[in-house]
Amino acid sequence: MAKIAVMGFGTIGSGVFDVVNTNREILKKTSGEEITVKYVLDIREFPGHPVEKVLIHDVDTILNDPEVTVVVETMGGIEPAFTFVKKALEAGKSVATSNKELVAKKGSELLATARENHVSFLFEASVGGGIPIIRPLLSCLTADDIQEVNGILNGTTNYILTKMNQEGTDFDAALKEAQDNGFAERKPEADIEGYDACRKIAILMSLVLGRRVDFEDIHTEGITKITTRDFAYANKLGWAIKLLADGWKLDDKVYAIVAPFLVKPEKPLYMVNDVFNGIMVHGNMVDDVMFYGRGAGKDATASAVVGDVVDIVKNPGITIYEGWEEEKQPLSDIGGACRQFLLRVKCEDAEKAEALFAGAEKIDAGIPGEVGYLTQTMPESEFNKAAASLDVIHSIRVQV
Amino acid sequence: MAKIAVMGFGTIGSGVFDVVNTNREILKKTSGEEITVKYVLDIREFPGHPVEKVLIHDVDTILNDPEVTVVVETMGGIEPAFTFVKKALEAGKSVATSNKELVAKKGSELLATARENHVSFLFEASVGGGIPIIRPLLSCLTADDIQEVNGILNGTTNYILTKMNQEGTDFDAALKEAQDNGFAERKPEADIEGYDACRKIAILMSLVLGRRVDFEDIHTEGITKITTRDFAYANKLGWAIKLLADGWKLDDKVYAIVAPFLVKPEKPLYMVNDVFNGIMVHGNMVDDVMFYGRGAGKDATASAVVGDVVDIVKNPGITIYEGWEEEKQPLSDIGGACRQFLLRVKCEDAEKAEALFAGAEKIDAGIPGEVGYLTQTMPESEFNKAAASLDVIHSIRVQV
Repeated sequence: MAKIAVMGFGTIGSGVFDVVNTNREILKKTSGEEITVKYVLDIREFPGHPVEKVLIHDVDTILNDPEVTVVVETMGGIEPAFTFVKKALEAGKSVATSNKELVAKKGSELLATARENHVSFLFEASVGGGIPIIRPLLSCLTADDIQEVNGILNGTTNYILTKMNQEGTDFDAALKEAQDNGFAERKPEADIEGYDACRKIAILMSLVLGRRVDFEDIHTEGITKITTRDFAYANKLGWAIKLLADGWKLDDKVYAIVAPFLVKPEKPLYMVNDVFNGIMVHGNMVDDVMFYGRGAGKDATASAVVGDVVDIVKNPGITIYEGWEEEKQPLSDIGGACRQFLLRVKCEDAEKAEALFAGAEKIDAGIPGEVGYLTQTMPESEFNKAAASLDVIHSIRVQV
Repeated sequence: MAKIAVMGFGTIGSGVFDVVNTNREILKKTSGEEITVKYVLDIREFPGHPVEKVLIHDVDTILNDPEVTVVVETMGGIEPAFTFVKKALEAGKSVATSNKELVAKKGSELLATARENHVSFLFEASVGGGIPIIRPLLSCLTADDIQEVNGILNGTTNYILTKMNQEGTDFDAALKEAQDNGFAERKPEADIEGYDACRKIAILMSLVLGRRVDFEDIHTEGITKITTRDFAYANKLGWAIKLLADGWKLDDKVYAIVAPFLVKPEKPLYMVNDVFNGIMVHGNMVDDVMFYGRGAGKDATASAVVGDVVDIVKNPGITIYEGWEEEKQPLSDIGGACRQFLLRVKCEDAEKAEALFAGAEKIDAGIPGEVGYLTQTMPESEFNKAAASLDVIHSIRVQV
């Protein structure tokens, strides 16, 4: 019998508690052992809830109990999660977490601690919720030179953009709808400003490159400047607007960006709508593969956490992931990235825009007083330089 | 250094040879060892080709060489592949294969042989080409009760159906185009009659259920009866026609079918076009996840085979998959499956059809002399019984 402790009884933590209870027989079959929750750590009380029987308030109860071999961390945030996880690893317990902030910020350190203590630090749920992505990258696509990882990694913003497109609602109304439906937090900044997607692409890139990609180095734009007028152009072109988190290698350089992009229908990510996530991986042999599913939510995320627990139970005393080097991977200036842009300018700037962006295709989305241009493929720095001399209403990148 | 032998230098075998040479540095990093091809077994000669230096014609050279720890089988078919693989496993060598006929027919036996000899028998490439699907099922979605696996598992038929839809070509012309472009064999029966997809879903279901699903028990229909007129109805409805390989559990019953289905745009498999494959997995916690990519082709399939080789090299002396029980999983009669149907009848049968299929929605696709009906959800057996008294032009199932 494997006894686990869950730290944090919020949405994901209670999901883990449910999955372990609901799928007891399945877990016995897949892990080879019965898995039970011995402790749940939370500062709150849950009177009348079944969790009461195993609820504790002191982390030392977990750390000092040799029966507990696996710790699940679903508290979120850096502290006290980091301290608790670090101590658990040092106490010889493996840890599974859904906490992307923790993995993005402290991943390499915690992976090293796990290695030193011959235990595992797993975090499948930290990116893409229930979608298998970390294990496929580490144990399936191992014959490939992975050249790009490009994903819709945030369900909240994808829901908002889908609503704006399908129902013509503006950003504020779509955000409110997302909040009312429980798909967005009351404090939505982490999602709508792209910070959440940024941490997730940093984790995936660190795994692929084997070196730490610092999320603070990634050029990050959110979706707050996207308007229904941008969608008028997207619809005219038959394209979608998606918040993409894209990391890629080109020659010896590594680039990363989080920003809204125009996505063409022939691209796999085009069809990823609502709260769903999609992660496209490009390898030099396998070409494009995509992983699709629920990128958030209680049950889906908990499924991934418990999948990590099963892996740990099946592989006692083994460090499942070697992890990545702490030394930072330098990122190249995004100005060097080449792509097309949609440029919206006032009608009086049309002639000037056409002179600056030779060969650009004029797009008439039927909005009075303005005109759009789809530029040729060019470096971002060049686009920005030319656009600086115009009174630009808005511009959006086009996915390559 | 890990020395491998490749049995069969056809499309996939030569792809494996190329991947090992092209991605030498990547493989060293992911597997921890240098991987080299010591032998390639083929009855043919390849004068002037780099493979010449390692080409052999006698399987015993491989079986008797203790330096060879991993054997790649890319010959296809049951014999002599089965005998060679069995002997390799008995000789204490792990085997990675792309051969779906072999895995579907002899998988449980070969997995048992691998277990007995403390080696591995891996076959990620046998389903979905380069798409990671077998490992995600076995080592990621382990916390879920997997209730359905539904896939577009054959690239050839998906290419043909995509062409018929997009270009309005009939089946014969689309098949010829597929053959001319190298996407269909000169003898296309295995693909167009659904046999290939049938073997693949049998493999996936055996993995999910832990018991052998015999592909010969699966109700299998190909795409040869699909016409441009069927697409007229599909277009009218805004739906696609896809060859789906679907296996699912309902209560204590297990069902499986390979057949053309009408697929609605909100379904993840709707957007899987051309030679691409998509595999949807439904778990009771994770909900729907989908895996998408190139389901065939030299490089993509070889990527999956070599990914298996890396796993073997990283895990010496370990049987990576336990496999499934040899005892056969009974499949329930597909007549018990409930769904909607598109029914096409002659105009003179319209009244009778409307009486037989109460509540069916009439569909006018503008084809003179006939009319279509979209039935209510009903068991297949009931649909067939009622349809038997009509002069049915064609009927197609609708994906649930």
